[in-house]
Amino acid sequence: DMFLESNNVNRTELEALLKYHAEKEKAGFVENKRPRWDFPGSFYFVATVVSTIGFGMTTPQTVAGKIVLIFYGFFGCAGAILFFNLFLERIITFLAFILRWLHEREMKRKGIGNDVKNSQERRSSEVSDTDSYDAWKPSVYWVMFILFFGAIVVACCASAMYYPVENWTYFEAIYFCFITFATIGFGDYVVSQQEAYPYVHFYRLGNFIFIVLGCCCIYSLFNVTSIVIKQFLNWILRKLNCQCRR
Amino acid sequence: DMFLESNNVNRTELEALLKYHAEKEKAGFVENKRPRWDFPGSFYFVATVVSTIGFGMTTPQTVAGKIVLIFYGFFGCAGAILFFNLFLERIITFLAFILRWLHEREMKRKGIGNDVKNSQERRSSEVSDTDSYDAWKPSVYWVMFILFFGAIVVACCASAMYYPVENWTYFEAIYFCFITFATIGFGDYVVSQQEAYPYVHFYRLGNFIFIVLGCCCIYSLFNVTSIVIKQFLNWILRKLNCQCRR
Ligand SMILES: [K+]
Ligand SMILES: [K+]
Repeated sequence: DMFLESNNVNRTELEALLKYHAEKEKAGFVENKRPRWDFPGSFYFVATVVSTIGFGMTTPQTVAGKIVLIFYGFFGCAGAILFFNLFLERIITFLAFILRWLHEREMKRKGIGNDVKNSQERRSSEVSDTDSYDAWKPSVYWVMFILFFGAIVVACCASAMYYPVENWTYFEAIYFCFITFATIGFGDYVVSQQEAYPYVHFYRLGNFIFIVLGCCCIYSLFNVTSIVIKQFLNWILRKLNCQCRR
Repeated sequence: DMFLESNNVNRTELEALLKYHAEKEKAGFVENKRPRWDFPGSFYFVATVVSTIGFGMTTPQTVAGKIVLIFYGFFGCAGAILFFNLFLERIITFLAFILRWLHEREMKRKGIGNDVKNSQERRSSEVSDTDSYDAWKPSVYWVMFILFFGAIVVACCASAMYYPVENWTYFEAIYFCFITFATIGFGDYVVSQQEAYPYVHFYRLGNFIFIVLGCCCIYSLFNVTSIVIKQFLNWILRKLNCQCRR
């Protein structure tokens, strides 16, 4: 329901923007290079703003448009950060669930076979019987690995979709995926900008799903990596401190 | 020292990039639209990548450049997130320090005057004598207000510097500040792209300081706002839950 709530916020803003742009178009004020303020175009534009990708293929040209952008950009970006943070929380909870499930299966197998002894053994003796998932929170390295793996899988799948449709090489599609998912968004490669596509609705849906998944994965991955870097720097500082005292 | 460490990471990467590009330029491979891979240009480029602003005024054109970008972009972005998070922590600690200092001054004044009784009174009775700043952590709304105020001040000062130098209107400069500080970075307005500037070194330094300060403020502001939005949504859900039960 959090996700729906967050989406609702964006949707009302989108509707306001659409209404606003419909009025502007009637008044003949729109002077964009590509004046495609239809629903998918506006949705794409709002998505690039809210996720802070900002390809820059469509930008507001009027003063009023810029003011509106600043206002909904403020709440939209905050909403997007909330969504990404909730995604990271859910991923960690999901991993904890998987870990507990694996452990329970292992315990059952041991109850029957009684000859399986591996590293899981040590873990079970430490944690004993706790019902909460908190005890099963995975280590930061494991989360980092899973997110890295997830990001690679999403990027490869997305590239496999993009490269024949957009006439790029596979490597260009991978580069586009990194630039987009990291929310850098140079705008040198932008998908869904040609006049016509085969199966355009499926392509747009897949595009949206891949970008949301990829941004979530990479945002979480950057956050987890920043924690690892922080631990590494703290470790270096402690080591330097020890050497100074000697 | 965290800040220095984080900066060092970027500097080594920058040097690697510079060396790499020097080699490329010797080999005659560079085919950019504006081939300005001098030190300030490269620094500016790396800063836009690492902060995920990504104006797109300079982008890697070769396959090797793209691969290098993906690698240092990964660690650079994680380092930037770490830096921003540390900024938010420090801001909260600083506010806690200010709050305690104000409280102590108030206590001294009471010791002399003994006739000042305000809301501070209640607070002192709750907290009593704790040495740690944890007890003085400010509320999320106060942090949000301070960050909002800080972001506005930075944006106004930065705009006052940009608009005469770049020949924009003051509003266009404000719009540029929002788009840049929110790390959207459309690239429709980009500073420091003209051939020559008066006092170019001061301008670049001021530009760098304003963008770092602005990004820190807006990043922290978005995070705090996302927490407020989360609390608001939880409050609505609780209220809906209560109404359903009735
Ligand atoms: K951008
Ligand atoms: K961006």
